[in-house]
Amino acid sequence: MVPPDRTALVSLAVRLAEAARPLILEHYRSALAVERKGDASPVTIADRAAEAAMRTLIEAAFPDHGILGEEYGTVRGDARYVWVLDPIDGTKAFITGKPLFGTLIACCEDGVPVVGVIDMPALNERWVGADDRGATLDGRPVHARACPDLADALMYSTSPDMFRGVDADRHRALAGHVRHALYGADCYAYALVAGGWSDLVVEASLQPYDYCACAAVIHAAGGAMTDWQGRPIRIDSGGRVLAAGDPALIAAAVSRLQGL
Amino acid sequence: MVPPDRTALVSLAVRLAEAARPLILEHYRSALAVERKGDASPVTIADRAAEAAMRTLIEAAFPDHGILGEEYGTVRGDARYVWVLDPIDGTKAFITGKPLFGTLIACCEDGVPVVGVIDMPALNERWVGADDRGATLDGRPVHARACPDLADALMYSTSPDMFRGVDADRHRALAGHVRHALYGADCYAYALVAGGWSDLVVEASLQPYDYCACAAVIHAAGGAMTDWQGRPIRIDSGGRVLAAGDPALIAAAVSRLQGL
Repeated sequence: MVPPDRTALVSLAVRLAEAARPLILEHYRSALAVERKGDASPVTIADRAAEAAMRTLIEAAFPDHGILGEEYGTVRGDARYVWVLDPIDGTKAFITGKPLFGTLIACCEDGVPVVGVIDMPALNERWVGADDRGATLDGRPVHARACPDLADALMYSTSPDMFRGVDADRHRALAGHVRHALYGADCYAYALVAGGWSDLVVEASLQPYDYCACAAVIHAAGGAMTDWQGRPIRIDSGGRVLAAGDPALIAAAVSRLQGL
Repeated sequence: MVPPDRTALVSLAVRLAEAARPLILEHYRSALAVERKGDASPVTIADRAAEAAMRTLIEAAFPDHGILGEEYGTVRGDARYVWVLDPIDGTKAFITGKPLFGTLIACCEDGVPVVGVIDMPALNERWVGADDRGATLDGRPVHARACPDLADALMYSTSPDMFRGVDADRHRALAGHVRHALYGADCYAYALVAGGWSDLVVEASLQPYDYCACAAVIHAAGGAMTDWQGRPIRIDSGGRVLAAGDPALIAAAVSRLQGL
């Protein structure tokens, strides 16, 4: 099935990233006061300014589309098209001066992420993917790589602390069967899979704004992104995700995660 | 006590970094075959080429100085001045396309790291420190920040898997008392402390070439770097290190690590 033309959606997604980037970089590595939310994740002025700017652009371009954002919640969540926004994914990276934080922008159609941007302000990299075209890094095509065997896979997770209770055991069961289990890349881990340099990401305790954009980019690059049961990512997939550059890796990873 | 002038040592250290960088970037994000050593750490052609180039420059400039390098071992290890080299710290970051790998260059005097460079090829950042001057990032002075309370500290370690046996319990004991325990920065974690954006690094299973350069940069920035007993880093400190932007943090961290 040929997907509809996504040009208008991709164009807006890129404009959102362009609008967010300077608002975020303005506060990076500054002596910015850090607030705390109920979940103790650091939230910055930059986070809010960037999301507000993106919401304004979406409302102007597609007033009937829905928006789900980390900072300002959901409007028109039952619309056919819903934009899913995380202005700063990796706020802990951001506040520690580590350049691996990113801006995540997705557009979901009937709940499926069809357009995604992973924008890396401090690295000056923009990853874009959509289901009617491939994925690109700063305009150049990127492709996920083949890696059919779990034993060869280079795998990232942001932190071991994101796996709670039995999820920690499941993560360890999977980590014991890959070549290297690595940490600390936030959304950039998904970009590295899309770029063909890493093979697998396993994460938990995520929100839709953490995974929708990544799923669109990974799929556009030829990879696969699913929940821990191997079902393709939707906006309501829940917090446990798997991303693989080689779709053949998903079944092996699911089997290890569910083997307990 | 005023330390001797380090201009000649700093000048050579910077030349080493300049020589290593293009040899490393040439192979970054390429389809480079990865070899395995006995310890299963990935070693690349880039690693070897960069260390060989640095050794040639040291031999030409200071033929009586010692050299301890990750790839080619030790010569004149009992010399008063010993250069300690890790061409690619963070080889797993390197092979996964993650830009946080670095080149570590130290010069030790009587076993004490007095000059250090943390060069970040993919980030295009060069951190330099010496005991007769401050620390700089690309020539601009940087300073570690005050953080006297462990409860406020932002702490990095490369991976939870670097802590083995009782060290894992000790790391958890410390991690439970900081504001955030984060992962995945390799040598860049030390640079972030020197820059005043992070507060603490705790690591284990390291080699002298992993920590000597970091110690010189951290000290020059006003921080402290010690072993897990709080003793200042020397070339033979062993694999367990602590780095703090605020020297007052060291005692509190040591106390948590030794509290088991």
